[in-house]
Amino acid sequence: MLWIDGTPCESAAPLDRGLEFGDGLFETLAVVEGRPRLLSRHLDRLTRDAARLRLSVPPRERLEAEIRAAASRPGTGVVKVILTRGVGGSGYTADPAQPPRRYVLAAPARRAAPTAGARTALLPTALSVHGPLVGIKHLNRLEQVLLRQDVVALGLDEGLVGDGLGHVVCGTMTNVFLVAEGVVITPALTRCGIEGVMRGAILDHLIERGTPATVRDVTTAELAAAEEVFLTNALLGVWPVAQVDGRPLAQGRLGSQLRSVVATW
Amino acid sequence: MLWIDGTPCESAAPLDRGLEFGDGLFETLAVVEGRPRLLSRHLDRLTRDAARLRLSVPPRERLEAEIRAAASRPGTGVVKVILTRGVGGSGYTADPAQPPRRYVLAAPARRAAPTAGARTALLPTALSVHGPLVGIKHLNRLEQVLLRQDVVALGLDEGLVGDGLGHVVCGTMTNVFLVAEGVVITPALTRCGIEGVMRGAILDHLIERGTPATVRDVTTAELAAAEEVFLTNALLGVWPVAQVDGRPLAQGRLGSQLRSVVATW
Repeated sequence: MLWIDGTPCESAAPLDRGLEFGDGLFETLAVVEGRPRLLSRHLDRLTRDAARLRLSVPPRERLEAEIRAAASRPGTGVVKVILTRGVGGSGYTADPAQPPRRYVLAAPARRAAPTAGARTALLPTALSVHGPLVGIKHLNRLEQVLLRQDVVALGLDEGLVGDGLGHVVCGTMTNVFLVAEGVVITPALTRCGIEGVMRGAILDHLIERGTPATVRDVTTAELAAAEEVFLTNALLGVWPVAQVDGRPLAQGRLGSQLRSVVATW
Repeated sequence: MLWIDGTPCESAAPLDRGLEFGDGLFETLAVVEGRPRLLSRHLDRLTRDAARLRLSVPPRERLEAEIRAAASRPGTGVVKVILTRGVGGSGYTADPAQPPRRYVLAAPARRAAPTAGARTALLPTALSVHGPLVGIKHLNRLEQVLLRQDVVALGLDEGLVGDGLGHVVCGTMTNVFLVAEGVVITPALTRCGIEGVMRGAILDHLIERGTPATVRDVTTAELAAAEEVFLTNALLGVWPVAQVDGRPLAQGRLGSQLRSVVATW
């Protein structure tokens, strides 16, 4: 028997393990003129992350068709897919016989793509160092929720977050790229952080066009000294950074270029 | 527009942030003869954890009444309360105007209280080191879900988990106590772990009856050398450990005594 906000719930279905334990993952896709952007990459990541969470995945063709159908609805700007381990089990112990459950949500675009550069700062709170879950876009996102509250309270557009060991890792809802001495650098995600689909697409694009790009640990000192900083996110695309910790940054050439490239995807 | 497993969902309500991001917390209470055990402690923890998550809480009297009503239903062995940040917001950024949402679930007892001692081992995977979330019984429990799969695969009753720094912290669904040279020790939860309600009740009981008890870092070497080990959990009460890493442990006097004490709660 289940009550929600004091009202008996008609459905006798047990609670979803996604709600009970964050037992699942998600993808958020931008929809451009009825078409889900970077669909193949999103499906690749979902498949890879699900395997790491030992979560079975519906047939790719079915997921793909459902995402395309959701994206094609007039007014859709975002399609969100949540895949959970379904219902049942005994506490943390899942029932392997239960099928996964998928949610596909079509929603209007959440916010306009920002035209101004992002005002950012390195937040005082570090990310947890996640061993087995690093990189995965799973449903355990309380850290990001709390960090976003800090970002709002500080009047910033985005907060950059470290690993507590002197490195900057990512933003609260973005991946971060730096340009230093002509080389593009994005932090390695070996201890914490999410491997963003846009991050991967930008890295591949840079490599294909012959721009030196590297993935490695980035110290907060390097962040402070960077010539150019930009953020990536599946919905926002590429977002040049105008300010880090109060220091104005000239919005660089590369970020603007990449913004134009993403507009063609 | 939302589809669940390919079927359009009648309700137009946005997804709960508890499902989307694990944005909330929970309590699981044992019900003994229609009465929720340690209710006051559970409500205290929920209130304390909610404040740390900046989550508003319904009036305590209302929650208490709903839990008691759920517990009094014939056949109820467990009452689970989930409190989430409700619906809405823009991605990780919550809408402060949205009220929280609470789920109260009455369910039969999940498993019989074990009569045999627990077969345990130290699991190879360490817990993430969580700064701001340490101790909280929040909804981000993917680590525990995966660790339980390891426990089942290893044919154990419970797995003990370390912090990756040489300490044992807790079990996958329990807190752990050791007896060494007449002193009862339970690991400090400063880097990871959940502050179990039963752990707190047992600690207070030991102190009240004059048994030396201490909370501090515990090395895995101390675990291996312990005279007696027992586990605590709100549903299972006190569970003596019969085996750690293949080494049989005499099920000690204290664990059995405390089991009898909990039976009176």
